[in-house]
Amino acid sequence: MDLPARTVERLSKYRRMLSKYHSIDGAHIFSHDLARLLNLTPVQVRRDLMLLGLSGNHRKGYNIKELVTLIGKVIDDEQGQNIAVVGMGNLGSAITAFIHKADTKLHIAATFDIDPRKIHTGDSGISCFSIGEINDKVNEYSISMAVLTVPPAVAVDVTKILVQAGVKGILNFTSVHLDVPKNVYLKDYDIITSLEEIGFFIKDRSNM
Amino acid sequence: MDLPARTVERLSKYRRMLSKYHSIDGAHIFSHDLARLLNLTPVQVRRDLMLLGLSGNHRKGYNIKELVTLIGKVIDDEQGQNIAVVGMGNLGSAITAFIHKADTKLHIAATFDIDPRKIHTGDSGISCFSIGEINDKVNEYSISMAVLTVPPAVAVDVTKILVQAGVKGILNFTSVHLDVPKNVYLKDYDIITSLEEIGFFIKDRSNM
Repeated sequence: MDLPARTVERLSKYRRMLSKYHSIDGAHIFSHDLARLLNLTPVQVRRDLMLLGLSGNHRKGYNIKELVTLIGKVIDDEQGQNIAVVGMGNLGSAITAFIHKADTKLHIAATFDIDPRKIHTGDSGISCFSIGEINDKVNEYSISMAVLTVPPAVAVDVTKILVQAGVKGILNFTSVHLDVPKNVYLKDYDIITSLEEIGFFIKDRSNM
Repeated sequence: MDLPARTVERLSKYRRMLSKYHSIDGAHIFSHDLARLLNLTPVQVRRDLMLLGLSGNHRKGYNIKELVTLIGKVIDDEQGQNIAVVGMGNLGSAITAFIHKADTKLHIAATFDIDPRKIHTGDSGISCFSIGEINDKVNEYSISMAVLTVPPAVAVDVTKILVQAGVKGILNFTSVHLDVPKNVYLKDYDIITSLEEIGFFIKDRSNM
């Protein structure tokens, strides 16, 4: 199914929000309630779900179990997907623990670092390997995605290694511009950008 | 100036990308080069900069120094803004260090945690206080924004304390739904959503 990135992002959010109600048979939710929970408009929610071929029941709204299952069919890879976290500083460790605990089809298969003290001593049973082992381990564990939390100075070089090893998606936390081939999906996250956005919208609110 | 959130986010990104060339007098950049560096379209870049009243020179593009200065005037608070990081686990510590090192008008004024071992023992000269001191310290340091990196179970309660203390903006990393008053600007970041988006776009690429 062909979907815009923003839609996929929202579908993932709908599921995250609803997954705790997922097991309750017959539970329903209205588009306006789902919209409110995620600070979206009801129209936006209905439009997204219409793209999946779902239209809510006027009296009861959307069946939550049906909705969660359908979103899974659309966005998940049936086999699940294997992830590597590269750079096991504070950020990499926090992200590894978070994904490991989350209810998702994404599995952390391995982590990588240059620090020999971190290598082969992973928490939660996830092994940490050296950067030099990326190529071997990406293939051995069929890793398709990497989370990049290395220091900025090495971001470009580590990315080259990941791409060469066959990684198809990168979530980049380094705030360094990365050039990747067209068949690699790159998503950047920069916390300063998020904070500056908040800063802009609150700067005249000090007296409210 | 009234601007959509997405525009502010992109303006912040333009500046982050260009700030390293900022000090070079007379340096220019074309909209298509800036677009390429940030995976945007040139039309998008030109439209954003037009909103600021800037139109590039056909032969040379945009003056980088002028552009960076103008973005600062539009999105920054002249006095700077003070931030608190609440929850000093791995993620909170990583974020604190990152913001502290970044070139931005945002200052980390304090951090908070329940763990007494972390309290008053901040790295980089930033003090860590107990959750019970939020109200006092938010006022003492004029903190307008908080980054929320506490465990999910306490996210709602800590948010209430922050809002009551007068915080006007929250960047929420807990993946818990937060209800905040209309005069508080809330931005959620959920890494699972970002990874699931990547997963969707790469799931049929394994043989490319």
